[in-house]
Amino acid sequence: MPHPLDSFFAPQSIALIGASRDHEKIPGRLLAMLRKNEFPGKIYPINPNYDEIDGLACFKSIADIGAPIDLAVIIIPARAVLAALQQCADVGVTNAVIISSGFAEEGGDSAAMQDEIASLAKRTGMRISGPNAEGFFSSRRRVAATFSPAVDVKPGVTPLVATGKRIGIVAQSGGIGFAYFNRAKALGLAVSHVVSTGNESDLGAGEFLDFMVQDSFTDVIMLFIEGIRDVGQFLVAAQRAAEMKKPVIVTKVGRSGAGERAAASHTASMAGWSAAYDAVFAKYGFIVSNDLDEAMTIAAVLTSNPLPKGDRVAVLTVSGGAGIWGADAASLQGLQVPELSGNIQDEIMKLLPSYGSARNPIDVTAQGVNSGGLQKSIDLLSTSHEVDAILVVLSLSSDVRMPFKEAGLKPVLESQHKPVVFYSYTLPSDFARRELAKSGVVVLSGLTHAGTALRRLVDYARFRPSGPAQAPSLPDRDLAAYLKSRVLSEADSKALLRAAGISLLEEMLVKDRGGLDEAIARAGFPLVMKIQSPDIPHKSEAGGVRVNIATKGEVFLAYEALLSNVRKARPDAQIQGVLVGPMAKKGVEIIIGTLQDATFGPMVMVGLGGITTELFRDVVYRPAPVNASEAMVMLDGLKAAPLLHGFRGAPKADVAALAQVIAQLSLLAARLREQVAEIEVNPVLVHPEGGGVTIVDALVVKRK
Amino acid sequence: MPHPLDSFFAPQSIALIGASRDHEKIPGRLLAMLRKNEFPGKIYPINPNYDEIDGLACFKSIADIGAPIDLAVIIIPARAVLAALQQCADVGVTNAVIISSGFAEEGGDSAAMQDEIASLAKRTGMRISGPNAEGFFSSRRRVAATFSPAVDVKPGVTPLVATGKRIGIVAQSGGIGFAYFNRAKALGLAVSHVVSTGNESDLGAGEFLDFMVQDSFTDVIMLFIEGIRDVGQFLVAAQRAAEMKKPVIVTKVGRSGAGERAAASHTASMAGWSAAYDAVFAKYGFIVSNDLDEAMTIAAVLTSNPLPKGDRVAVLTVSGGAGIWGADAASLQGLQVPELSGNIQDEIMKLLPSYGSARNPIDVTAQGVNSGGLQKSIDLLSTSHEVDAILVVLSLSSDVRMPFKEAGLKPVLESQHKPVVFYSYTLPSDFARRELAKSGVVVLSGLTHAGTALRRLVDYARFRPSGPAQAPSLPDRDLAAYLKSRVLSEADSKALLRAAGISLLEEMLVKDRGGLDEAIARAGFPLVMKIQSPDIPHKSEAGGVRVNIATKGEVFLAYEALLSNVRKARPDAQIQGVLVGPMAKKGVEIIIGTLQDATFGPMVMVGLGGITTELFRDVVYRPAPVNASEAMVMLDGLKAAPLLHGFRGAPKADVAALAQVIAQLSLLAARLREQVAEIEVNPVLVHPEGGGVTIVDALVVKRK
Repeated sequence: MPHPLDSFFAPQSIALIGASRDHEKIPGRLLAMLRKNEFPGKIYPINPNYDEIDGLACFKSIADIGAPIDLAVIIIPARAVLAALQQCADVGVTNAVIISSGFAEEGGDSAAMQDEIASLAKRTGMRISGPNAEGFFSSRRRVAATFSPAVDVKPGVTPLVATGKRIGIVAQSGGIGFAYFNRAKALGLAVSHVVSTGNESDLGAGEFLDFMVQDSFTDVIMLFIEGIRDVGQFLVAAQRAAEMKKPVIVTKVGRSGAGERAAASHTASMAGWSAAYDAVFAKYGFIVSNDLDEAMTIAAVLTSNPLPKGDRVAVLTVSGGAGIWGADAASLQGLQVPELSGNIQDEIMKLLPSYGSARNPIDVTAQGVNSGGLQKSIDLLSTSHEVDAILVVLSLSSDVRMPFKEAGLKPVLESQHKPVVFYSYTLPSDFARRELAKSGVVVLSGLTHAGTALRRLVDYARFRPSGPAQAPSLPDRDLAAYLKSRVLSEADSKALLRAAGISLLEEMLVKDRGGLDEAIARAGFPLVMKIQSPDIPHKSEAGGVRVNIATKGEVFLAYEALLSNVRKARPDAQIQGVLVGPMAKKGVEIIIGTLQDATFGPMVMVGLGGITTELFRDVVYRPAPVNASEAMVMLDGLKAAPLLHGFRGAPKADVAALAQVIAQLSLLAARLREQVAEIEVNPVLVHPEGGGVTIVDALVVKRK
Repeated sequence: MPHPLDSFFAPQSIALIGASRDHEKIPGRLLAMLRKNEFPGKIYPINPNYDEIDGLACFKSIADIGAPIDLAVIIIPARAVLAALQQCADVGVTNAVIISSGFAEEGGDSAAMQDEIASLAKRTGMRISGPNAEGFFSSRRRVAATFSPAVDVKPGVTPLVATGKRIGIVAQSGGIGFAYFNRAKALGLAVSHVVSTGNESDLGAGEFLDFMVQDSFTDVIMLFIEGIRDVGQFLVAAQRAAEMKKPVIVTKVGRSGAGERAAASHTASMAGWSAAYDAVFAKYGFIVSNDLDEAMTIAAVLTSNPLPKGDRVAVLTVSGGAGIWGADAASLQGLQVPELSGNIQDEIMKLLPSYGSARNPIDVTAQGVNSGGLQKSIDLLSTSHEVDAILVVLSLSSDVRMPFKEAGLKPVLESQHKPVVFYSYTLPSDFARRELAKSGVVVLSGLTHAGTALRRLVDYARFRPSGPAQAPSLPDRDLAAYLKSRVLSEADSKALLRAAGISLLEEMLVKDRGGLDEAIARAGFPLVMKIQSPDIPHKSEAGGVRVNIATKGEVFLAYEALLSNVRKARPDAQIQGVLVGPMAKKGVEIIIGTLQDATFGPMVMVGLGGITTELFRDVVYRPAPVNASEAMVMLDGLKAAPLLHGFRGAPKADVAALAQVIAQLSLLAARLREQVAEIEVNPVLVHPEGGGVTIVDALVVKRK
């Protein structure tokens, strides 16, 4: 299927506006890189000062070319860019990359120039990347529209290529994007495209991601982002990637600092700057990595292996200590390293010396390499149903010796039964990399990263994109009318929740002593009494709560005490009355919250309640709304999940009812995204299966 | 100070027993490596089949040499080793390394041969390393007593050396030990010695560690262990390292189930339980790393930098995105990345283009490199009191260009004001490594590891070795007499604790209804009643506990109910009676336990009580005994520590009293190490400051 950016990445002709003869400077480097990479189409240098550059005819302006131009690469002073773009548009140039700096990153007038570029793109339909971009590289048509030294072609050096599958790189930092490329080449990973997105006046990371998702030349995507600007396009691309099952390895930086949000609820205050990003990544099955080497390792394993069918790993080694380390690396990721069956052990031991071991880790020993035990083990394990992946741990530093023969290794790897990952504890030699590349092997040099990569592959293989949100629909009434103050009292908050169809215990708001008798009759003993005021979101701390009240006398005493406490603590608070209701049955304490993220909108959070929530930050976020099955996945993501599943002999909790409430609240937050900033129900008590949940307290905060 | 192993690592003469002319096989490789590394002393090949090998006179046996031998390297079939060793001892050989395999790792008769080697060492005083060792390398006298390809000398290659300080490597795996060496050389780290310890018939990892600790030629130690065998020597060495403040970076493998299985079959040792290892490492300030690259990075930063005085990091970069990533890497380790003062920002901005930033991260931009902004920033930050370390994040892939001049960089780094760590997001070129090595820089290529290394340096700089255990001494009485059954009932357990001087609430063991009145009088209301039986360690689960009893009537009813419940649940249990005591005041729930580790003996553990302990495994171990200040450090290590320090407006807990109880229990476990397997007090309620602690329940288990 053609994509609007096809001609951007595979132009027939390129005009270089601001071409120069000086190879030491960026404009000159751009032309040199384009030509060194042997772009097969037409190149038109444009510079009014020259007639030719390095043997190419040079034009005064783009209008002088008189031929169709698919891509203009612009590297002229910022103040001249807009006019040049207009000339491009006038002659029908399809795409432009602006390398020049001096726009939004400088603020003021310069930022205004960038706005004009954006308008020009909208007006003319020309697609524009940058400004302040490092450009892009595309291997399919050998387009090096960048000055990055990473695309330089070194004479006499044969590129190392170990993988058939290709990675596509989208980066909001040119330095990092081309560092990915630099490291990918060193590992032997084939790369389809690298694009640095610069200031994103028109084309943003989301749209580039979408191109890579749809591009049949790209198998795995690496994404480096600071902050998404084209959110809508990003989400469309993410959904497509999830449906097509094309892996996206994402690094999001800017996770530290500035994470504090002024908010009334725990939900919002615990959400760091990147919680919403991580929630979105989780929804679409993105593979998150915050380390460059780790991300490259995951990409390497994905491009050189099938996905695993399970989480059982065989560790195969030539050194006992290294094998134990390999087993640790897998186990610490929660992968299984099962002891092999007697049959397989016997088969393997036939080729090993007596001091070898075939239990798993399988230590074939140095001697076992010579006797064919290493290759034979891979053959056996590759087709065995006892393990789902093989981690080979050995030393590949030799410049002359190889523990494998291509004729033995290549066919078994090509059969693609399961991932076979090769890690060298010594630094792998260039010789070893090139020899093993012939069999499709990328040699890894970081063991923890190799373990992490296997874990991520297992998780990715298990990931299923969530269907449309079939949460229970909300009643068709004006819910916004329930938002009576900026911070709603518990009673008001619960009124909104009830109106939204969420089930709550019956409670009565008592406004004078005369109402207490009826309240007692309704609630029964033991009961709870809580002061109600939109000015007091934290009632306990103001002495506004009494629980477990068992007699009528106590009720009346408590009523007076609550009012007097709160009048003392907060003399100016507007008091609505005292909420009287039955004591909730026991249950697992859960917190559910929603908030509005500046980038991605409504988010829903669930966590274990009580002190644990804040102390261990054991919470999971998702974009709202979620349906009940997504809510179940959220609950599974909690470290405290075992508490819901019958921990230490306790009965299983009613997670179905809990998931339902999470879905309902998420839908409410999504529906009221323009009116409501936060909803928090804390605690929700989850009763044993079939017993449902009790929302003990609720807090709703309107948007400012 | 001379060390018994001086002549092992710096021999004047070496005999090679089993020398061979075949360079392809291990015996031949040993001789070749020794000579290639230009060992300056005498080398005596021994092989009855030759008169000379490669121009060296070859001897029939060691007795024929007629000159003193400091080191015999033995590579002959296993069955011939013992006789050869005896011959060595007969002529006064000081040290031997047995490379040969086929001993304890094979079990049976072969294991018995190893026992005889150990006896011979004891009997003769000759020190023996191995068997089944990969040997060692020592740079001081260029001793390559190993067949590892890592010590091969490549003609025409100048070694890369960036550091003045040297690392010493002790590894219980030859493959890994020499992989450390291989990677250290690639990074430019100077290495003093590498030793692989093999089966440790005589010389063990602990004694080799002790040599490295005392060796003035070694500045930083890297230790790879599967399981310590010479525990006493290891602990002496660890204490010395802590006192001398010589960093030990330790990797302990066999942390997972599968790893332990392999350790049992691969070597003659059982991989110990890693919690006890980590407790010992923490006590002595060892730097734990479970990843090879991470461990090398920590070693690189330690050998090329002073220790930091605090935890404030400046991140200096030429690429905005990479700088944010650098700040993330530091922040995620809990390091501070403070905004710089206006003064410093102004100074730096003078040299940067308008789109640069000096806030921190400091983005000098590519242009700022040319204008001197990068070097100037390092100069300014290096002497500034605003930060304690500098993380430089840049691209060092160029084969020709360098962003620094030695004349500018070297003097500021040599002044050793604070750590300056260099990370390249592109793969560093050999050119860059060599150029920067001239200024003492090791270029790092893993950002997460760089952040981790800075964190570890901060922690190491803060570490203070604990003084002698001045825990409150135990009463001088026969405490073992209190161990009345294999599992002690709560009452019996508490009796032991009381006898050990630990303060507990007064409780009364009631054996018939007639005793209840007195018990009520002593305890007062509300009170607690608990069934007592050495057969029922988990009383609640047997229906054997009633809390919060407020009336005399309830007491009598509860007494009958408890007995009847327990008779139903455990008809065969021996019932001692019902323990009656006052309800404890509220407090933070803590668990304290002790156990006996097979390798290191008594251990004490503390954790947050309640469900949190099991679910989040938030526990800290130390070798017992600890004194109160060590106990304080343990408490600080809990994630839940904030709960003790006045969490969310709660009063501060009496941590002094808690630390005191931890110390007392640890001392008790150490004193009764031969008699007691486990002590657990759970929960201990820690009351507000000055209020002490209440031990609610206690359990003591005798050793089998």
